[in-house]
Amino acid sequence: MKVIKDPKEMQHLALDARRQGKIIGFVPTMGYFHSGHLSLMRRCRKECDWTVVSIFVNPLQFGPREDLETYPRDLDRDLRLAAEVGIDVAFVPEEKAMYPPEYQTYVEVTQLTRGLEGFYRPGHFRGVTTVVLKLFNIVQPDFAYFGQKDYQQLKVIERMVQDLNIPVRIVACETVREPDGLAMSSRNVYLNPDERRAARVLYRSLEAAREALKSGTTCSAGLKAVIWGVLSREQMIRPQYVEIVDPETLEPVDRVERRAVVLLAAFVGQARLIDEGFLEMEP
Amino acid sequence: MKVIKDPKEMQHLALDARRQGKIIGFVPTMGYFHSGHLSLMRRCRKECDWTVVSIFVNPLQFGPREDLETYPRDLDRDLRLAAEVGIDVAFVPEEKAMYPPEYQTYVEVTQLTRGLEGFYRPGHFRGVTTVVLKLFNIVQPDFAYFGQKDYQQLKVIERMVQDLNIPVRIVACETVREPDGLAMSSRNVYLNPDERRAARVLYRSLEAAREALKSGTTCSAGLKAVIWGVLSREQMIRPQYVEIVDPETLEPVDRVERRAVVLLAAFVGQARLIDEGFLEMEP
Repeated sequence: MKVIKDPKEMQHLALDARRQGKIIGFVPTMGYFHSGHLSLMRRCRKECDWTVVSIFVNPLQFGPREDLETYPRDLDRDLRLAAEVGIDVAFVPEEKAMYPPEYQTYVEVTQLTRGLEGFYRPGHFRGVTTVVLKLFNIVQPDFAYFGQKDYQQLKVIERMVQDLNIPVRIVACETVREPDGLAMSSRNVYLNPDERRAARVLYRSLEAAREALKSGTTCSAGLKAVIWGVLSREQMIRPQYVEIVDPETLEPVDRVERRAVVLLAAFVGQARLIDEGFLEMEP
Repeated sequence: MKVIKDPKEMQHLALDARRQGKIIGFVPTMGYFHSGHLSLMRRCRKECDWTVVSIFVNPLQFGPREDLETYPRDLDRDLRLAAEVGIDVAFVPEEKAMYPPEYQTYVEVTQLTRGLEGFYRPGHFRGVTTVVLKLFNIVQPDFAYFGQKDYQQLKVIERMVQDLNIPVRIVACETVREPDGLAMSSRNVYLNPDERRAARVLYRSLEAAREALKSGTTCSAGLKAVIWGVLSREQMIRPQYVEIVDPETLEPVDRVERRAVVLLAAFVGQARLIDEGFLEMEP
C-alpha cells in the first residue's frame, strides 16, 4: 500500500488511474479505525479497481469547544489495517497542505444542515462538505463510501454531490454495531467501563421505538416518549436530541406513515455519541 | 457543433472525452458574444483537443436590482459564431436543470470577494463560484479560459480552484477592446450613441494613470486623482469606485512599487461597466 501525504501527488496518481480506465473507490475517514471503517474499506475494495482511504482529522468540522485535540489517533495501526484489507493508497495529508494560510473557500449545503447535528454543531457541516469536496477533487473517485451512522452527514453529502454535479456515486453503508448494539465510533474510546455499559441504551431505545411502532404507536410524539423513557432510565446518559424525520428531507414527521428515521445524540460522560435507526411500517 | 442542454448528457460526453485522453478546453460565458468571447474560444480551440463553450445567464450572480431580465441574449447568433470558431460542443442548460427546486449548495471565497465588485454586488461572487464549480464538474475541463476584464472574478476563480484542489488550469486572457479602447462587454449594447461616446473615458482614464506613473506619480492617491479627473470631465459617467490594488491579494496599495492594477466601475446611462488596467514601473 502506498502512503501519500502530498495532495498534488495524490491527485496526479488518481488522474493517472482515471486515464487508465480504472474504477476508483474512496473511503474518506478521520482514522482510528474500527469495524465500521473496515467494512467500508472491504466493500470499496470488492467493488472498485483502485482504492484509496484518506485519514485526516479535519479541523474545519470541529467547533471551538469540541474534541479536536483529544480525537483519538493511531496512524500506524490504521495503515496496517488498511493494508491488510488490500487498499491501494492511504492518503494522509497534513493540515497545512489542506488549509494553507491563504485558504478561504467554503462549500455549504443550506437547508439539510439547519437542524439536528447542524443545530448543535454550528459550522460542522460546512467543514464536512468543504473537506469532502476537496478530497473528491484530489482522489477523483467513481464511488465513495460513507457509513449511515452519520446519517445527516450522508444526506448532506448526497445533496452536495447532486447540486454541484460531482461525478461520484455515494455508497451508503449500514451502521456496524458492537454485539450489544452500540454503533461503532472512534469516540467510543472515550467511554470508561461504566459509561460503555450505559451507552447500550442508545440502541435499545431505537429497538424500543421499533417495538412500539409494531404495537401500533405511529405518532412521533408517542415514539419519542418511548425513546426518552428508555434513555432516561440510564443516569449516565444526557440526551441532546431525539428526532423522527423524513429519511430524505430530514424534516420532522408527525407520524410514521411508511418510513422514517430516528436520529439522536447523547452525551455519555465526555463522549458525545450519535445513532440512527429506521422505522418502517410493515407492508 | 453539438448543442447540449442536459447537464447529465454533457457530463457523460465530457467523461468519455477524458477517458479517451483528450485535452478538454472550456469557455464559460453568459452568451451574447463579442470579440472578447471569440478570442477566448479561438485560443481554447488552438490549445485543446476538445472544446466546449457554455452559454448560461446565471441568475445566481445577479442581485435583485440588477439586469438579469434585460441581459442581452441571442442564442442563434451565439451558436453560429461558436460553430464558426470550430468549438465542438455548446452547452446551453436551462435554469431549472442547473438549479432545481430543491437546490441548496453554495461555494464561497471569503476574502477576495469582500471589496470592489463584491462590495457593490453582494452575493455576486457566491453566484459566480457556485456556477463555475458546477460547470467545471459537468464539463471536466483541463483548461478553462477567462477574460481579464472581470479581473476580480478571475482572481476569485483562481483562488477557488487552488483551495478546492480542482484539477483545471485557469487561462487568463487579455481584455479585448474596441478601437477607441472601450473594453468589450455584452453590456455595451445598453449604451445609446452619446453614452457610447462618453464610455471611452473609462479606458482613457487608465491611460492617463499610466502616463502619470511614467511621469513619476507613484502614490495611489495621486494616480486615483488623475483617473477621477478624467472620468469627471464626462458628465454622463457616474463612477462607482476606482481602486489601485495588489494584482494577487486585491488589497489597496498606497504606492505603485512594481506592479498594481487599477479596477474601476462606472454607470453610463443604465449600463454598469467595469474595466481594469495594469500599472507597471519601468524596470
